[in-house]
Amino acid sequence: MTVTVVGSIAFDTVRTPFGEREHMLGGAATHFGLAASFFAEVRLVGPVGGDFGSEELAILATRGTNVDDVERVAGGRTFLWRGEYGWDLNSRQTLDTQLNVFEYFEPKLSDGSCDCELLFLANIQPELQRRVLDQCRGPRFVALDSMDLWIETARDALVDVIGRVDCVILNDAELRQLTARPNLISAARDVLALGPSVVVAKQGEYGAALITREQYFSLPAYPLETVVDPTGAGDTFAGGFLGHLARHVDRPLADRVLRQAMAYGTALASFNVEEFGTERIVRLTAAEIHDRVEDLRRITHLEHDPILA
Amino acid sequence: MTVTVVGSIAFDTVRTPFGEREHMLGGAATHFGLAASFFAEVRLVGPVGGDFGSEELAILATRGTNVDDVERVAGGRTFLWRGEYGWDLNSRQTLDTQLNVFEYFEPKLSDGSCDCELLFLANIQPELQRRVLDQCRGPRFVALDSMDLWIETARDALVDVIGRVDCVILNDAELRQLTARPNLISAARDVLALGPSVVVAKQGEYGAALITREQYFSLPAYPLETVVDPTGAGDTFAGGFLGHLARHVDRPLADRVLRQAMAYGTALASFNVEEFGTERIVRLTAAEIHDRVEDLRRITHLEHDPILA
Repeated sequence: MTVTVVGSIAFDTVRTPFGEREHMLGGAATHFGLAASFFAEVRLVGPVGGDFGSEELAILATRGTNVDDVERVAGGRTFLWRGEYGWDLNSRQTLDTQLNVFEYFEPKLSDGSCDCELLFLANIQPELQRRVLDQCRGPRFVALDSMDLWIETARDALVDVIGRVDCVILNDAELRQLTARPNLISAARDVLALGPSVVVAKQGEYGAALITREQYFSLPAYPLETVVDPTGAGDTFAGGFLGHLARHVDRPLADRVLRQAMAYGTALASFNVEEFGTERIVRLTAAEIHDRVEDLRRITHLEHDPILA
Repeated sequence: MTVTVVGSIAFDTVRTPFGEREHMLGGAATHFGLAASFFAEVRLVGPVGGDFGSEELAILATRGTNVDDVERVAGGRTFLWRGEYGWDLNSRQTLDTQLNVFEYFEPKLSDGSCDCELLFLANIQPELQRRVLDQCRGPRFVALDSMDLWIETARDALVDVIGRVDCVILNDAELRQLTARPNLISAARDVLALGPSVVVAKQGEYGAALITREQYFSLPAYPLETVVDPTGAGDTFAGGFLGHLARHVDRPLADRVLRQAMAYGTALASFNVEEFGTERIVRLTAAEIHDRVEDLRRITHLEHDPILA
């Protein structure tokens, strides 16, 4: 199965209470791809600049990810993001964003990327997400992410593209903002009414909730004593989530499959935040992922109460 | 089994996006008692003023709760709280607090209340919690709640009393404040190091986590489309939690018992917030609680992944 992801490839400079790292490989497509590559063939689509080296390209290609559609813009510079996290890592301040090559990005997918079974539209301008969808030849499952900026400035375009995907993965605050509904369940139902079959509400350190027309499922974040750098956790989650769905692409909407996908996404995200940037996921093993998924099952397990039986 | 609770009995005036109610029966001991009364014999200890009527006393006595130790202070006025919730009900502003009879409250427990098997020290001055503990004849399980005010102004007294209880039930932000640890797991471990065997981190709309020396368990809040008034949710949770432990007082620290207790607390709290004040819990039935506990099991259920087997 092939999963195509279209989104940012970036250099991140990040300061957290645990230190600062400059010019690390980052970006939504990068984090997504590194996670999804455990489960499926991944194809990365996104622009980089002349400053993007072969070492970074090698990291993108970890576990066989196809980087043919990583477009190197001659003379351009790679997207830059600089941010700082607060004491408890739950607040983040963006100190600098330089779109660079992303400013004029026009997605052009090769046949191989178009022919994917699963497609992830990472957080980019909704109009660009639409153009990607127009190029793809009927993937069996499409998910998208977005952000407050597009909800504010390109709401109509975002709503249009949401109407064409199977799954929306947003932070709970973004779901509330998009729908003007303070209640998360109501907000999710409004998004389902636009067309998608699945809404995933990311809740940061608290985990994530999955809402379909028939089901509600909630999974806490994996409990960690040390969180070093939350950057990319959401995209890593999406990579694990869609990666698992790729293994069950004949029935991605089965409740059991979706729940397991939540567990894989949660496990992957928990590894991602243990170290800066892509460091931890690059050297992660499948056995470690499986152990953590089993841990998640244990820490959420609630037996039947015999008093109720 | 007898559960004694010592804490506030209050008149609350609450404004939420769903309306405003004046002078409703409220207070930590009230909410706790109404929830715990489904599971055990409850004894309420707390002061009220001459303005406290027989109707309100009848509500406290719902499902047989013993109100002999509800001390009526002649000429005094009942504790008053007035607050307002924001758009998404996650932010709360206290507009007025009048301690009234609570200002000079000196807990005096009757023999019946002292001889309890379980004791809940609701959020009151740590020094008063200590004096209650000094009076009680070895309850088998003691839990306490507290708040930011006491962490700031009476930290040493609070740490002392924490050292004498089995279980601490606090909001996650309070656990962080108490321990100066940004990480919740580290914060909980620091509290366990003070003596308790169980820490419950309440996480508002996200649910609650339970941390012991051996186990971690996390349970989401019950998903509700309509939340009318969150006041008392934490104390209602504690009432369901300790109530269930009262049914298993021979082994309250068994992992399975603690997890079920989390589910009962969560279920009770979810009913509490559906209507203003005590309205919903007063007319709640055991069957409704049991259905919601089963729902919680379903919405958190994660099967073994056959790929892992």
